[in-house]
Amino acid sequence: MRLSQMLFVTLREDPAEAEIPSHKLLLRAGYIRRVASGIYSYLPLMWRVLQKVSRIVREEMDATGAQECLLPQLQPAELWQESGRWDTYTQAEGIMFTLTDRQNRQLGLGPTHEEIITTLARDLIRSYRQLPQNLYQLQTKFRDEIRPRFGLMRGREFIMKDAYSFHSSEESLRETYGAMDQAYRNMFRRCGLQFRPVQADSGAIGGSASQEFMILAEAGEDEILYTDDGQYAANVEKAVSLPADAVESPFTSYERRETPNTPTIASLCQFLNCSPTHIVKNVLYQAVYDNGTTVLVLVNIRGDEDVNGVKLTNELTRQAPRYGAKTLLALTVPDGEAQAKWAAEPLPLGYIAPNLADGYIAPQPRVAPQFLRLADLTVLELQNFVTGANETGFHVMGANWGQEFELPAIQIDLRSAKAGDRAPHDPSQILHSARGIEAGHIFQLGLKYSQAMGATYTSESGEELPLWMGCYGVGVSRIAQAAVEQSHDQNGIIWPVALAPYQAIVIMPNLNASDQVAAAEALYGQLQAAGIEVLLDDRDERAGVKFKDADLIGIPYRIVTGRSLKEGKVEVVQRATGESQDIPLDQVVSTLQGWIAAALA
Amino acid sequence: MRLSQMLFVTLREDPAEAEIPSHKLLLRAGYIRRVASGIYSYLPLMWRVLQKVSRIVREEMDATGAQECLLPQLQPAELWQESGRWDTYTQAEGIMFTLTDRQNRQLGLGPTHEEIITTLARDLIRSYRQLPQNLYQLQTKFRDEIRPRFGLMRGREFIMKDAYSFHSSEESLRETYGAMDQAYRNMFRRCGLQFRPVQADSGAIGGSASQEFMILAEAGEDEILYTDDGQYAANVEKAVSLPADAVESPFTSYERRETPNTPTIASLCQFLNCSPTHIVKNVLYQAVYDNGTTVLVLVNIRGDEDVNGVKLTNELTRQAPRYGAKTLLALTVPDGEAQAKWAAEPLPLGYIAPNLADGYIAPQPRVAPQFLRLADLTVLELQNFVTGANETGFHVMGANWGQEFELPAIQIDLRSAKAGDRAPHDPSQILHSARGIEAGHIFQLGLKYSQAMGATYTSESGEELPLWMGCYGVGVSRIAQAAVEQSHDQNGIIWPVALAPYQAIVIMPNLNASDQVAAAEALYGQLQAAGIEVLLDDRDERAGVKFKDADLIGIPYRIVTGRSLKEGKVEVVQRATGESQDIPLDQVVSTLQGWIAAALA
Repeated sequence: MRLSQMLFVTLREDPAEAEIPSHKLLLRAGYIRRVASGIYSYLPLMWRVLQKVSRIVREEMDATGAQECLLPQLQPAELWQESGRWDTYTQAEGIMFTLTDRQNRQLGLGPTHEEIITTLARDLIRSYRQLPQNLYQLQTKFRDEIRPRFGLMRGREFIMKDAYSFHSSEESLRETYGAMDQAYRNMFRRCGLQFRPVQADSGAIGGSASQEFMILAEAGEDEILYTDDGQYAANVEKAVSLPADAVESPFTSYERRETPNTPTIASLCQFLNCSPTHIVKNVLYQAVYDNGTTVLVLVNIRGDEDVNGVKLTNELTRQAPRYGAKTLLALTVPDGEAQAKWAAEPLPLGYIAPNLADGYIAPQPRVAPQFLRLADLTVLELQNFVTGANETGFHVMGANWGQEFELPAIQIDLRSAKAGDRAPHDPSQILHSARGIEAGHIFQLGLKYSQAMGATYTSESGEELPLWMGCYGVGVSRIAQAAVEQSHDQNGIIWPVALAPYQAIVIMPNLNASDQVAAAEALYGQLQAAGIEVLLDDRDERAGVKFKDADLIGIPYRIVTGRSLKEGKVEVVQRATGESQDIPLDQVVSTLQGWIAAALA
Repeated sequence: MRLSQMLFVTLREDPAEAEIPSHKLLLRAGYIRRVASGIYSYLPLMWRVLQKVSRIVREEMDATGAQECLLPQLQPAELWQESGRWDTYTQAEGIMFTLTDRQNRQLGLGPTHEEIITTLARDLIRSYRQLPQNLYQLQTKFRDEIRPRFGLMRGREFIMKDAYSFHSSEESLRETYGAMDQAYRNMFRRCGLQFRPVQADSGAIGGSASQEFMILAEAGEDEILYTDDGQYAANVEKAVSLPADAVESPFTSYERRETPNTPTIASLCQFLNCSPTHIVKNVLYQAVYDNGTTVLVLVNIRGDEDVNGVKLTNELTRQAPRYGAKTLLALTVPDGEAQAKWAAEPLPLGYIAPNLADGYIAPQPRVAPQFLRLADLTVLELQNFVTGANETGFHVMGANWGQEFELPAIQIDLRSAKAGDRAPHDPSQILHSARGIEAGHIFQLGLKYSQAMGATYTSESGEELPLWMGCYGVGVSRIAQAAVEQSHDQNGIIWPVALAPYQAIVIMPNLNASDQVAAAEALYGQLQAAGIEVLLDDRDERAGVKFKDADLIGIPYRIVTGRSLKEGKVEVVQRATGESQDIPLDQVVSTLQGWIAAALA
């Protein structure tokens, strides 16, 4: 393509709307333009990058035997009501755009397609003989994000590959899940990206096991914890670790003591001259379910640990049926005003006792909410511990489970793992922290959707059984930007060869030098004929502008028909290394072919 | 692909939801499934067909130098308000889906992208040196159709290629418009379709010239009028023709006569024993504009002619500024109840006089509406004509313009051309009628959007001028179904080779005959290695079922490893002709390669 004929506009200044380097560069280099918050036009250069990512994704999916299809973006509300996700996606998370058609029917704009594909499977799959199946699509998806940001990283309209598999057994599901894991590793490797697969939380998609593929970059929104031995990596939302050993408590007899101005663990430790591991911290939350039920949740956790919001949300979602509800709508820490609805007297959160409910809920006419206690595993073995006294300015110490306080019935892992913790698989391994951009996520959904929507098959023995399901997503547009976030310098983008919109750019520095023009035109023709994707900068611009633009847009190989032309050579610069060499005219094509083949190997 | 591993389900019965053959066949043969009214899932076979159409479209667009991009589907209302189309698309035609995001901003789901691209051009195009530009995209579009029907023909979610070009002159626009015309002819030819380019009305898109590409098929929603000499073809909405010659009137003196029970032209002609060409018919309409203004419109047209609703709508839209309005919202024929709002006494429509307003509108307190008269060109030369008398059961005859009645100031072509009319370019040519499916539409938009949205460029002489614009659409999913509508038989689909999801299918009639299985597997491998897209029917089904399915899904070449195998041959059947021949095993690949190359030439 000739730059003089392309819709090609670069900007000298960083646009004010962008915060992170990749967003700035994609705007400056003329790859994208913002239409509205989280909504972008992909200009011709960007479209080529997206097509390259898509092609790699397709090839890897096809290689596993998955079949491409295309499902609708407009999805009837009834299907989401059947699966039980309508409320979650339109209220609790509220990330689905909804609209009403002229027949007054409600539709959602698809953020994901479990409902549509499960309906299809219900219609099309009858017998175990048709299984397994794996269908995928590449498609624009929609999410009404609370805070769209970072360009294509968290957009409201974005391109994804999503795949859905159906199986007659969990074993078959695990097999396809494994094949997808491998296909995803291949995709990210072929895209030329530094990435890490990590254990992940399944969130609103649901199911059992799930794994994310993180593109490593400082600006990533996710924190990853991993060990050096490569045996463990997880999203911090999901990560587990061994807590530090608790120190033996010095408080060998039970007492209640005045502890003024000690609402925090630090202040309490200082006042009592004790370790945070001596303390049972009691953290109060307010959970609201979709049927209107409010539950006060008290988590008992060791003083040096923090509650992991994702783990807590998952547990409270699991508990929904206990309250006759389907979905958790909101989870907050109640302030004094919120507490005043039930408490005789609002209690600063630092003074709550494990048995808060006993002394806290006021008599009528105040409304007594439901009460739920959860113990994190770190408190189970504590003895002679310190904890709140249900009275401002007082704590108790030397307390023990089964004596002063009962342990809650629900005892689960609710703590946040963190960098520096010991790894569960090998205490000699320490968790390290890195930032990542979630660019892929694969799930073992199990029977969640097939049971809810009645998608069954007839087994070999004639039984009608629900289909086992998996689903597998890749953010195509997110990968494109993440590649820039991972690979750029002060001069612009440095595309991996596999994703670059063009592999090479031929620059004629001076349009008035006929030898430069002729050599550039000849090379441009030869490179095209050799199947190399090449730009020709034939614009009437200064050489410096052309060099700057070539660096900015990040084309891997820059060929300049300049001074060395009189020796029958051209300058070839590699964008990634900055390395420059003069190459004889008749060796340019073969040299580039060699480099490109090596880069794509 | 092995059919045993594909999500492949055919139906024996025609589905009740489908009316036309192509819709029935796509459902029966497992290409599509309905999700909601006008919303379909494209199953793997269909996706391959859509990819084939898309590829041809891309290749032809790229060959013209057009650049692919991707614009958002979510479009801010403000952009449509800027262009003045928000009301047209959300009220008058009401075909745009709209929604509100969590920030309470209104968005439309893109049915077309003039607003988005004009905003881009306004941002990116500064100088004549950047022109011309032509950008295109392949994308799912949305229309909240009043009556979604015929499967993919008139869906609410469908795939289109749309392109938009920008120019520094009308001449440059015409050049690109010509290149698009040629590219479109190439596309349809390469898709293997019978088609016809026709002059077309520009509708809500606007602009001056426009041309549609019609795929010829009985079930087509559009009527085309064309001449045998190939010099004229137009959509009936837009077509012009020479009216029949008027017969000289026998009514040489003016009189008013009682004509009981003559509300129709036929009854009046019988009563008066005259020709319809003696009559000036006065057709009353009620137009409602977006600012609430109601206008009574009276069209004077010759008795043997009919008013063309599209031509009338266009004229009334052009008249909007006269009433301080932007858009025509509705056009209806007022019934008695509607007339009662203004008329002293409702008048049966057959008795209206050309000067209806004078006698018809009652005095206060009834509200006098605005009144607009339009004369179709057929009435200008009429002399001594018959027409209504503004009184039930009475007509006048021997009337003349300038004597009993004034001619309206607006005199334009408003009549419907019809089959049998003489062509305007050559009265010896007669218009014939055919049905077509509109699958492409190209427009010279002119300055409509660039002026409304301030998209300008600096000319060579330094002037800031509005950009000339064209736009060019192709219905990708519609083409796919239209191909089936044009080419099928009682046994199923007959795909053109260029669009078939697979070019060949190898059938092993009997899974227990090891020689059949071995030969089929070997051929399957050879055909794949030769780059032929091939299915292998390795299902455990009866041979008859396999043959029926192969015919139903319409694969061009069917290869059966059956009886002739003992002679070292296989049966090869061509789907289009039904022709069957036995071909030696070692010649199958080369024979098919030859046929396919010939079909794609």
